[in-house]
Amino acid sequence: MARRRYKVSKKPVGTSPGTLTYVGQEIKHETKVKRIEYNEVDYNVDESSRLSACQLPHNEAPHVLWIDVDGIHEAPVVAKLGQQFRLHPLLLEDVMNTEQKPKIDLYDDHRVSAPVVYVTMKMLHPNPRRQEIDPEHVSFVLGANYLISFQEERTNDIFKPVLDRIQASSGKTRRNGADYLLYALMDLIVDSYFVVVERLGEKLDDVEDRIIRDVAGRDTLAILYALKREMTFMRRHVQPLRDILGTLLREETPLVHPPTLPFLRDLLDHVNQIIETIDSYRELIPGLLDVYLSTTSNRMNSVMKTLTIVSAIFIPLTFIAGIYGMNFDNMPELHTRTGYFWVMGIMVAIAAGEIIYFKRRGWM
Amino acid sequence: MARRRYKVSKKPVGTSPGTLTYVGQEIKHETKVKRIEYNEVDYNVDESSRLSACQLPHNEAPHVLWIDVDGIHEAPVVAKLGQQFRLHPLLLEDVMNTEQKPKIDLYDDHRVSAPVVYVTMKMLHPNPRRQEIDPEHVSFVLGANYLISFQEERTNDIFKPVLDRIQASSGKTRRNGADYLLYALMDLIVDSYFVVVERLGEKLDDVEDRIIRDVAGRDTLAILYALKREMTFMRRHVQPLRDILGTLLREETPLVHPPTLPFLRDLLDHVNQIIETIDSYRELIPGLLDVYLSTTSNRMNSVMKTLTIVSAIFIPLTFIAGIYGMNFDNMPELHTRTGYFWVMGIMVAIAAGEIIYFKRRGWM
Amino acid sequence: MARRRYKVSKKPVGTSPGTLTYVGQEIKHETKVKRIEYNEVDYNVDESSRLSACQLPHNEAPHVLWIDVDGIHEAPVVAKLGQQFRLHPLLLEDVMNTEQKPKIDLYDDHRVSAPVVYVTMKMLHPNPRRQEIDPEHVSFVLGANYLISFQEERTNDIFKPVLDRIQASSGKTRRNGADYLLYALMDLIVDSYFVVVERLGEKLDDVEDRIIRDVAGRDTLAILYALKREMTFMRRHVQPLRDILGTLLREETPLVHPPTLPFLRDLLDHVNQIIETIDSYRELIPGLLDVYLSTTSNRMNSVMKTLTIVSAIFIPLTFIAGIYGMNFDNMPELHTRTGYFWVMGIMVAIAAGEIIYFKRRGWM
Amino acid sequence: MARRRYKVSKKPVGTSPGTLTYVGQEIKHETKVKRIEYNEVDYNVDESSRLSACQLPHNEAPHVLWIDVDGIHEAPVVAKLGQQFRLHPLLLEDVMNTEQKPKIDLYDDHRVSAPVVYVTMKMLHPNPRRQEIDPEHVSFVLGANYLISFQEERTNDIFKPVLDRIQASSGKTRRNGADYLLYALMDLIVDSYFVVVERLGEKLDDVEDRIIRDVAGRDTLAILYALKREMTFMRRHVQPLRDILGTLLREETPLVHPPTLPFLRDLLDHVNQIIETIDSYRELIPGLLDVYLSTTSNRMNSVMKTLTIVSAIFIPLTFIAGIYGMNFDNMPELHTRTGYFWVMGIMVAIAAGEIIYFKRRGWM
Amino acid sequence: MARRRYKVSKKPVGTSPGTLTYVGQEIKHETKVKRIEYNEVDYNVDESSRLSACQLPHNEAPHVLWIDVDGIHEAPVVAKLGQQFRLHPLLLEDVMNTEQKPKIDLYDDHRVSAPVVYVTMKMLHPNPRRQEIDPEHVSFVLGANYLISFQEERTNDIFKPVLDRIQASSGKTRRNGADYLLYALMDLIVDSYFVVVERLGEKLDDVEDRIIRDVAGRDTLAILYALKREMTFMRRHVQPLRDILGTLLREETPLVHPPTLPFLRDLLDHVNQIIETIDSYRELIPGLLDVYLSTTSNRMNSVMKTLTIVSAIFIPLTFIAGIYGMNFDNMPELHTRTGYFWVMGIMVAIAAGEIIYFKRRGWM
Repeated sequence: MARRRYKVSKKPVGTSPGTLTYVGQEIKHETKVKRIEYNEVDYNVDESSRLSACQLPHNEAPHVLWIDVDGIHEAPVVAKLGQQFRLHPLLLEDVMNTEQKPKIDLYDDHRVSAPVVYVTMKMLHPNPRRQEIDPEHVSFVLGANYLISFQEERTNDIFKPVLDRIQASSGKTRRNGADYLLYALMDLIVDSYFVVVERLGEKLDDVEDRIIRDVAGRDTLAILYALKREMTFMRRHVQPLRDILGTLLREETPLVHPPTLPFLRDLLDHVNQIIETIDSYRELIPGLLDVYLSTTSNRMNSVMKTLTIVSAIFIPLTFIAGIYGMNFDNMPELHTRTGYFWVMGIMVAIAAGEIIYFKRRGWM
Repeated sequence: MARRRYKVSKKPVGTSPGTLTYVGQEIKHETKVKRIEYNEVDYNVDESSRLSACQLPHNEAPHVLWIDVDGIHEAPVVAKLGQQFRLHPLLLEDVMNTEQKPKIDLYDDHRVSAPVVYVTMKMLHPNPRRQEIDPEHVSFVLGANYLISFQEERTNDIFKPVLDRIQASSGKTRRNGADYLLYALMDLIVDSYFVVVERLGEKLDDVEDRIIRDVAGRDTLAILYALKREMTFMRRHVQPLRDILGTLLREETPLVHPPTLPFLRDLLDHVNQIIETIDSYRELIPGLLDVYLSTTSNRMNSVMKTLTIVSAIFIPLTFIAGIYGMNFDNMPELHTRTGYFWVMGIMVAIAAGEIIYFKRRGWM
Repeated sequence: MARRRYKVSKKPVGTSPGTLTYVGQEIKHETKVKRIEYNEVDYNVDESSRLSACQLPHNEAPHVLWIDVDGIHEAPVVAKLGQQFRLHPLLLEDVMNTEQKPKIDLYDDHRVSAPVVYVTMKMLHPNPRRQEIDPEHVSFVLGANYLISFQEERTNDIFKPVLDRIQASSGKTRRNGADYLLYALMDLIVDSYFVVVERLGEKLDDVEDRIIRDVAGRDTLAILYALKREMTFMRRHVQPLRDILGTLLREETPLVHPPTLPFLRDLLDHVNQIIETIDSYRELIPGLLDVYLSTTSNRMNSVMKTLTIVSAIFIPLTFIAGIYGMNFDNMPELHTRTGYFWVMGIMVAIAAGEIIYFKRRGWM
Repeated sequence: MARRRYKVSKKPVGTSPGTLTYVGQEIKHETKVKRIEYNEVDYNVDESSRLSACQLPHNEAPHVLWIDVDGIHEAPVVAKLGQQFRLHPLLLEDVMNTEQKPKIDLYDDHRVSAPVVYVTMKMLHPNPRRQEIDPEHVSFVLGANYLISFQEERTNDIFKPVLDRIQASSGKTRRNGADYLLYALMDLIVDSYFVVVERLGEKLDDVEDRIIRDVAGRDTLAILYALKREMTFMRRHVQPLRDILGTLLREETPLVHPPTLPFLRDLLDHVNQIIETIDSYRELIPGLLDVYLSTTSNRMNSVMKTLTIVSAIFIPLTFIAGIYGMNFDNMPELHTRTGYFWVMGIMVAIAAGEIIYFKRRGWM
Repeated sequence: MARRRYKVSKKPVGTSPGTLTYVGQEIKHETKVKRIEYNEVDYNVDESSRLSACQLPHNEAPHVLWIDVDGIHEAPVVAKLGQQFRLHPLLLEDVMNTEQKPKIDLYDDHRVSAPVVYVTMKMLHPNPRRQEIDPEHVSFVLGANYLISFQEERTNDIFKPVLDRIQASSGKTRRNGADYLLYALMDLIVDSYFVVVERLGEKLDDVEDRIIRDVAGRDTLAILYALKREMTFMRRHVQPLRDILGTLLREETPLVHPPTLPFLRDLLDHVNQIIETIDSYRELIPGLLDVYLSTTSNRMNSVMKTLTIVSAIFIPLTFIAGIYGMNFDNMPELHTRTGYFWVMGIMVAIAAGEIIYFKRRGWM
């Protein structure tokens, strides 16, 4: 459906703020909720659980609790979770609003709601059918020693690699708190951006190659345009991560602990590299456009030269032939013996003269 | 009337500052004033009232007073209200100046005038007849526990949804103060911006589609131009909301209370999303232009190639025919038996040669 | 004189700083000096006075003294005034330098010179003969309870409306100090900018209309260029007012009193509106250019199509006619009874085929 | 020599930092050193001196010492001076590096070197032969009560006007310290920039005039390009003066005394005016380009219309003539009495019809 | 291999952070490690050593230890070094990631890792075969009194000049600490940038020359495009040095000592000069493009004029000849004695008239 391309959040005008409305693609299956609890020695997954078991961990047990929610289209499920963890209504609204741009919100007034860090960003999936990128809305709620992750569940669980790492070893993730888990999941998403950027780079390389070798077809400009649109799209969804990570790094919240900071700094570095790479790609496009348009114009020039040369040579000659095709009674040249040959000679001379002239001007 | 498009406030040069002058469209009907008073338990509307009843609420009664003024074209009405609420003359001048850009003014010197927050912004109505957006001048005066709203009354009361919500339930709006009411009305206006942006997105999508599929007509550039003008127009009227909300959020005034801040922050978020969306649309237009101009140029190329091919094939052949149409007495070829057929054969060979040449160069 | 357009201050290289040099247009008539003294009850004008009467007001009498100087081309007059009011030589140099850009200088070291605020800005007159704007150099010196205004005296006294207001009533201007007088005069100048912007808007509207309706002549680009030059010119002369007003509003000088601040803030608001309006106009010009160039190119396309269609139809037919105009003895077709009609039929068929082909391609 | 245009400092890679290397044009003559010592009453020049006399002034004598060095190509001379005044090796490297951009360096660690202010800027000479500007590397070393100035000595001593002023009178320069002398010399250089900008303005005016009156030749674009290159060049060499003067004005060094500040502020004002003027010129160039290209394109259009009109009228007529030039035996029209005149009439009618059609479309 | 041009770090998605992965070109030879230890009197190189000897210097001996590692493709070697010097895993990851952009990291938490300054930048080698620049990944680890340098070992040891200087004399490098060594190596790399910029300047000069003299070939745009790509590439790799040097200069780390600061400031100056030079080159390219495209368009114009002149002269004449080639029985002119000569005369007159007309319009 063509209308999907430029979309904005379409909550009906006049709705009260904080109303939970899902505005994304229609989704059939049910919301899945995984409950993972772990520390350096223990590890515990409850996949069957729906919502009853999702309670705050007991403070005495130094476990990290991770609630992984797959599917954000069922308002009651999100509302229930929000109630159990005492989350702010505006936070829940943002969890369900798939058009929400990446951002960070610090909820620190514990009288109103639980003090949490809310981070939302986009998983980017290259669209297999069209030259577009599909964003998947992902949200994280970081609490005292728990993390809730929300995803749209487009395909499979995108957090599986981290889950596997937790399960497999008692490595860094197991030794660290919920803030490191947040970092690990964000790092996973940012790593996947590199794949998308790589794909854009390949496309750019391909079209550049075709333009420079002058074998670019008519749709080149449309391809360049779509490429630029993809880059703009991507930039808009990656750019806000700078602010998000900046806020986390400025230590404005006690929920992020110092040992996690070098890792977040490293992540910010990756984000900057992605943005810079996209920007450097985008800067190349106007130049490519110029090269392409210039080759088009050169081809036009070449066509015009051919037309001009052929016309300039044969139109005058045809005129001469026309003269001696006139039927006047009194045309002395017609009755000479060598007239025909003289005329033919003159014609050859004119043609030769013109060819020399065109060669000199560099038209042939 | 074409002259309306680019207009600036036309107060006569040399008028004393603070003079009340209405510069908007001529309006016939009378100013309507609604007086709404409510708190968590009570609710009270006085629609008949003109101005006599519009007095400051008694401080002991913890009610919120909302004066909703429909129509700003009658200077005496505005002046009377200003007198009753002790508003600054420059504030009243801005209420009536429909060309005033969105802004916030903090009047905090209680010796000169009542300490109020003055906010003015634009309601945006898509013009049904032309590809333009009509702005409606809206002003808010936030006082201790009252709010005065002014609108141009183009169509109906644009604040009806909020009025209905107050009337219907004892929800958030009823429980909160005048600052939350200000937020709710601003939120209503910003929500309506999403509709305008959606409409712009659809138009852009439509014209993009037509350009990429190469079925765009001659007026495409004029449409793109009008689209860009609409976007620029919209941006100019939404952009200042950032400053307005920023000022409110920096807590520079005691009239805005902490519980309202998360809602204002959410509103700022929406405003940023609208601005960013418009910017991303505007960035696409130069690319579309290039694609459109390139297809135009490709079509031109194609026309020129046809001309060149036809001319290059037939002009030389016509010349040959012209030679043997000459009337020289002594033209030996004419009198041979097979001359005619030889010439025809040569002509076919030349044409075939040229066709092969043009095919090789990719012109056919 | 064409050379006037791009001018810079041409004080000879090597002149000692602080030398008074007039670089503006040559002016014949003498400098006129008005001396106005007023407070809430009194009012007193001395128009005859040249310089002798221009002394500082006696501190005991709470009058505001306004010296209105018409003409800045006579160095001795300016120097004399400077001496009487103990002004800094660099200030006087700026008063006479008509190429000086708008700026504010705070002279606060009372050991070197009198502590004054120096403000210079431009009165803008639309040039009646050419598409240009003529700037008039205006300077203000704000002292303890006096104001000196300098103007180039191009036409009439541009400050007449304020003078009339002072004379007529005992309104705001009469009740307030010299700082309010400065505000009133600056407001007068800024009000006149709206007239210039309005005129630019009308021109833009006019040229936009002609371009969109495709009736724009060859000089359209030159008009657009001149329009843009006017806008750039205007922006350069209005833009610095932001800094000037910002400096006054930051209360860096005790010469501006708090009650005047809301008025200066209002003035800043007007200045911002003018700048923003000019910017929004300037942003439209590239789009208009594109539309104009595209219609030019469309017209070219249309010319080329006509040429191609006519040539492609008649050149092959002429060739066929040429064949049967050859004089070979042995051309069997010539001697058949229906040959002529067959050839005519074939010609019609070819022409019809081509017309169908061109219609299909959308060229006709 | 074409290679000169884009040059960077070419000190061999791997040279130890602080090595004195001259990279400018080869210069034959010897370095000249003037030693001027003055105060309000005394004045003393030693032109013969080479280096021996250039010592620090005795602190008890309140004289200003000015060492004016003409020629920076002799490393031993520069090194000797550096030793006598205890200057930092990096400072001396910058004195000799003619490719060094304008900058300011504060050397304030008196253990390492003498505490001085180092300022380097460019004297700009319009190149008489090519459309280029030649920069001359000028450096100033401001010490306690001395100033050392270095120049490349291209032509004459560029500081002569200041020297003459010192010699002639006991004016401002004589009464003030070495910091005022630095200001006076910098002011001299900045004054000369106005001359260069004036010249650029005249060239721009000239080319604008030719373009608008449509008499611009083929080299117009090359002229515009060179003009823009000159402006960019100039801007690059003037722009850093903002930082230099800003640093001096922020009173970061005790070597600049308060009475000099208003003069430096005035100088900053001039620099800003120059930069702004250049910027306003540069902004005009793209518009001029558009006008020029559009007139070129209009001329092309006009050529194409002529071709089309001539072809469209005569090609069909030629075809008709061609028909009746065919030699078929059976062509009934040929043998009628009025056939020729009918055909001629039809031809005139066709031509007339076409002319009316072209007139209607506005092509003639 | 075309795919190399746009590359991003391709660490597999889901890898744990801190994993050492080499992503650069495949390299065969082994890692070489040099161990240099020196102070003002001693000097000691151990080239044979692999890793065993690379230990921290004994604190009592005031030597500077420099470990120069050639080759970063062997993860075990890097890991071993990291272990010996207690470096952070993320630092080692950056050492091996050849796609890492230049940056600085301060590791100052001595509980986690050794407190070091990590600087990475790029050595730039002009690619001899293609119009590209090859970056070589270089890293520095500055510790208490040691420095570890890592290079990709593309060609020879790029730090040889500094090594030679240390070996040869007891100059500045020998007298100063590890921070000065870091400066010396960075200075070496930055010096080599001047060579690359010089080469870019020469290419630009060359292409500018060809364009202005109108002898530019068809590949001009591709050359300009490649030139701009090189400049963008270079800028991206030099730009971050500003931040790196800024961080070092702000004295955020005790590892950099005050005497080194003037040298680092000088280096920053060089970096700024390089960036500014590149920027000024890049600004020229659009202007060159315009000049080139305009000459192309002028040539096209010239071709079209030729076509138009030839056609406009000969097509009407051919038509006249065609008229008198018609075979009507009754064509009175044909049988007059002077008809032929009259027609010839008329033809000459028409041709002459057209030539005069074209000359007047400036087409010939």
